[in-house]
Amino acid sequence: MVLGHESSGIVTNIGRDCKILKVGDQVAIEPGIPCYICHFCKNGQYNLCKDMKFAATPPINGTLCQYYCCPEDFCVKLPDNFPSLEEAALIEPLSVGIHSCKLADLRAGQTVIIFGAGPVGLLAGAAAKASGAVKITMVDINQSRLDFAKNYVANEVVLAEREIPQGLSSVNFAKRFSQKLLESGVEQADVILECSGVETCIQTGIYMTKSKGTFVQVGMGMEVVPIPIADIGVREIKFMGSFRYCNTYKQAVQLVSAGFINLKPLITHRFKFQDAVKAFETVKERKDNVIKALILGTDTN
Amino acid sequence: MVLGHESSGIVTNIGRDCKILKVGDQVAIEPGIPCYICHFCKNGQYNLCKDMKFAATPPINGTLCQYYCCPEDFCVKLPDNFPSLEEAALIEPLSVGIHSCKLADLRAGQTVIIFGAGPVGLLAGAAAKASGAVKITMVDINQSRLDFAKNYVANEVVLAEREIPQGLSSVNFAKRFSQKLLESGVEQADVILECSGVETCIQTGIYMTKSKGTFVQVGMGMEVVPIPIADIGVREIKFMGSFRYCNTYKQAVQLVSAGFINLKPLITHRFKFQDAVKAFETVKERKDNVIKALILGTDTN
Amino acid sequence: MVLGHESSGIVTNIGRDCKILKVGDQVAIEPGIPCYICHFCKNGQYNLCKDMKFAATPPINGTLCQYYCCPEDFCVKLPDNFPSLEEAALIEPLSVGIHSCKLADLRAGQTVIIFGAGPVGLLAGAAAKASGAVKITMVDINQSRLDFAKNYVANEVVLAEREIPQGLSSVNFAKRFSQKLLESGVEQADVILECSGVETCIQTGIYMTKSKGTFVQVGMGMEVVPIPIADIGVREIKFMGSFRYCNTYKQAVQLVSAGFINLKPLITHRFKFQDAVKAFETVKERKDNVIKALILGTDTN
Amino acid sequence: MVLGHESSGIVTNIGRDCKILKVGDQVAIEPGIPCYICHFCKNGQYNLCKDMKFAATPPINGTLCQYYCCPEDFCVKLPDNFPSLEEAALIEPLSVGIHSCKLADLRAGQTVIIFGAGPVGLLAGAAAKASGAVKITMVDINQSRLDFAKNYVANEVVLAEREIPQGLSSVNFAKRFSQKLLESGVEQADVILECSGVETCIQTGIYMTKSKGTFVQVGMGMEVVPIPIADIGVREIKFMGSFRYCNTYKQAVQLVSAGFINLKPLITHRFKFQDAVKAFETVKERKDNVIKALILGTDTN
Repeated sequence: MVLGHESSGIVTNIGRDCKILKVGDQVAIEPGIPCYICHFCKNGQYNLCKDMKFAATPPINGTLCQYYCCPEDFCVKLPDNFPSLEEAALIEPLSVGIHSCKLADLRAGQTVIIFGAGPVGLLAGAAAKASGAVKITMVDINQSRLDFAKNYVANEVVLAEREIPQGLSSVNFAKRFSQKLLESGVEQADVILECSGVETCIQTGIYMTKSKGTFVQVGMGMEVVPIPIADIGVREIKFMGSFRYCNTYKQAVQLVSAGFINLKPLITHRFKFQDAVKAFETVKERKDNVIKALILGTDTN
Repeated sequence: MVLGHESSGIVTNIGRDCKILKVGDQVAIEPGIPCYICHFCKNGQYNLCKDMKFAATPPINGTLCQYYCCPEDFCVKLPDNFPSLEEAALIEPLSVGIHSCKLADLRAGQTVIIFGAGPVGLLAGAAAKASGAVKITMVDINQSRLDFAKNYVANEVVLAEREIPQGLSSVNFAKRFSQKLLESGVEQADVILECSGVETCIQTGIYMTKSKGTFVQVGMGMEVVPIPIADIGVREIKFMGSFRYCNTYKQAVQLVSAGFINLKPLITHRFKFQDAVKAFETVKERKDNVIKALILGTDTN
Repeated sequence: MVLGHESSGIVTNIGRDCKILKVGDQVAIEPGIPCYICHFCKNGQYNLCKDMKFAATPPINGTLCQYYCCPEDFCVKLPDNFPSLEEAALIEPLSVGIHSCKLADLRAGQTVIIFGAGPVGLLAGAAAKASGAVKITMVDINQSRLDFAKNYVANEVVLAEREIPQGLSSVNFAKRFSQKLLESGVEQADVILECSGVETCIQTGIYMTKSKGTFVQVGMGMEVVPIPIADIGVREIKFMGSFRYCNTYKQAVQLVSAGFINLKPLITHRFKFQDAVKAFETVKERKDNVIKALILGTDTN
Repeated sequence: MVLGHESSGIVTNIGRDCKILKVGDQVAIEPGIPCYICHFCKNGQYNLCKDMKFAATPPINGTLCQYYCCPEDFCVKLPDNFPSLEEAALIEPLSVGIHSCKLADLRAGQTVIIFGAGPVGLLAGAAAKASGAVKITMVDINQSRLDFAKNYVANEVVLAEREIPQGLSSVNFAKRFSQKLLESGVEQADVILECSGVETCIQTGIYMTKSKGTFVQVGMGMEVVPIPIADIGVREIKFMGSFRYCNTYKQAVQLVSAGFINLKPLITHRFKFQDAVKAFETVKERKDNVIKALILGTDTN
């Protein structure tokens, strides 16, 4: 199966009925094509379409190939002031971040805590900053990722403990951790963007949400997690799931074009098409503080 | 300490600066007085005020007394077409139901499943129906409560199993239960109003929420509950806490006055003031299929 | 050109790829087919699609014919408890009413004033009542229409003056009229649904909107109208345009099926297919207090 | 009567029950004190309180004096990273801008056109930029104001014509002007913030609003304006009034502290307390390209 769902390209051919694009256009490619006709598609929530054909999600082939065929309404033409095709490949993960901020209804002047300082967390942070988040706190277990985050978008970073002490439930660990955070001056936030998928982060995130605030679960991982539900209840927290994105590509392209978001620092590595396996290994093993590794198309090699 | 927070009365005296009420007015009494000046009070979310003085919540005395002193802006005058002072005492629990529907952003044409067919569940159902809910399914472990619900407001009722079979986790029990519901023709709903506080109901409720739907936790009980978080994520469910109510009293009084909600059937018992203890015992032991037992003021005895 | 855009029918044939409908299904037919791929279509606002093909809007033929071809996702199958195919033809104008209530964000407990007691106004009223509007005031210049409205859905009706006295601007007339209304006990409302398109109604409607309330312009007519803009400003009124509808058909069918809305009283006349011209004349001349005149398909004659 | 409603200060004394502030705190002062108990106050819309006591709005005295008495919940303490007391005096007009963006529900990635490049328009622009507006177009009849705007916050500026040619209605002038704008490459925007109050700007603004976009009337002036209502209807534009602000002060202070908004360039003039009259004259006559003229308190002279 062909892998890949974060990609950009140059239009080499267009169908008879195409009206939007022309050959030579540089585009960011949205990798999921929904059915267009179900309840979710009709209501502007096509990310939940049950007939979604998403690149590199079996049995659908991905975008990591020389020529990729895509409906023109799922390509966004890059404007002249968009930096380059390389950054365009990151419109996909940026969309995940933007979608989470939209679900959170994040507003200028609000504060945010982000769990997980990997690519998704960083891009959620970039989207939050572009929306006017006045304070972005990032939490991770990896100091080098936090260092990167601090330079990139975080106002404040927190190194989390890796291990739950024996005999302590995950919820109690999280309660204690959030207590420590509060004592050390980290404040509850209007919005939590949980991008780690880790049980204790989810729990800590709930404790760190302001009353009437919003927690968005961006990262995946656990099937079932013990949740401090009384805290959600008494403080009227909104706990929301976030799945991929919809209607974010144009917004993402414009935010990058306008200079609100800089994607360049995230591209730490580049590989030739024939070295794609190395690219995957580099990311898997988190070599050389990799954030995002680009695989260049055959023509550009 | 004086108990009581669901009450109505007749104004016998007013303060010098009162502008809204006059002696003789019949009123529904909102039992929680916030600080007026904090962030939550200023933003129309006074139910989350940390300085809330709520009747019968220690150390604040309750309303179960002959004369009760209350700011006039927390009394709502009953209009002429409001049925009676008795129904006015139920504006408080009705407010809990209305608040949950407001949090759920419940709209005409939507479907609702309510867990728990006690007073709160019934009144949440009444509020949902008044908002145009086209199908209300109520779930309880008590058949007589379901019979009442069916007559009162439910379009469909489901008797839930009491016991989790040995060896089954609560989440798996809930998954199986929701599977059975679906097979028996009960459909996922746009909105879940969870009024039982029971672990397996919370979990079943999540499985029974439509994708992009809203689950509101109304009932309290458990501190921590294992939640099928992957389901919330992939299907973008909104899971919301609900705490008391704010700005609901006038709306509640108007809905009853206009005939959208009938509170009378819920008042199954009446007790004289001196028999208050019997009233509490009746409710505690759920005698005679009691739903709501009124304690009449001394003047009305 | 074939006329007609309010219609229902029985499926006589389906395309190869149809998955939702089968031959024999009774359906309400949504008469506007958008492009599916533009910004508005993708965002759940397909009523604003610039490539909309709307029945009986030149050059698109309408639905007033024996066989009509329609994408299955724009047909809504009538459930068993839906009254009849006749009522299904009124799902279209009911959708206009529902859409206006959705734009107004109308909630249970709110009050509504509707200008214009024709079919659109009556159905906007029906939609408002289904959403929990506790008081519906209808304004018209025709007493017999008001009488009908009073029986159908209005709590209060107001006969408007037909003529602006000489020397009075329309705005000043409206200001004086709204003053008279207030003096006679008609109160400002949370929501105004303006279904007449008449200049003085639009202006009166603004004066009759509560501070922070919403005015929805449903009816069309004037290109330019003098608006008391200072009133909109100081009282933070939301003035909204409303154009057709989107994503309302299923909701409309369910509200009728569940008994929240009764469309039968609006069908005052029935004509055979070959008498279609009489039907149009009857409506045009408002004969016999006609509200809606059905034209029956050839098979049903 | 004492004038002044844009001010900051240092706390010199506090009341017995004060809990938030202490002597010596530097604060931005919110100049309108509502009743706290009406419907609007309870719902977080206190700017519409009918018993509002607003500084320098007769008969209420203003803030232009050495000592001003204010409830502590209407003072916002400046954090350490807030630039200075001078900027704090501009939190009031910035609040007007922030409030208009909140009403418009302005989101990251959207485009904005602002009519009027005076202080209110500039600060609306600053608020829009902080919210992630990717393109801000400012329209004025004064080139020097536009030059300032271009340096301060505008991506694009447009010099408007001063005079309506004889024989042309204001609406037709506006229609023609908007046509010219479109032809010259200025695009319709998601949000219009109308800060001039000028009839032709209001009309042009409506034509320049995207379908489904939002127009906010910030500036005041005309009582009645001819509005192209058909355009609002067919394109489902939301036209909103905006009156002062509520719950914006903390957000404004945080946006300035975090560096999202720079108020310093707007302070073009400073006057001693005894020269207050000169300050008013300077602003009135728009001398020396004045934007904002500060009047310094007696202690700071």
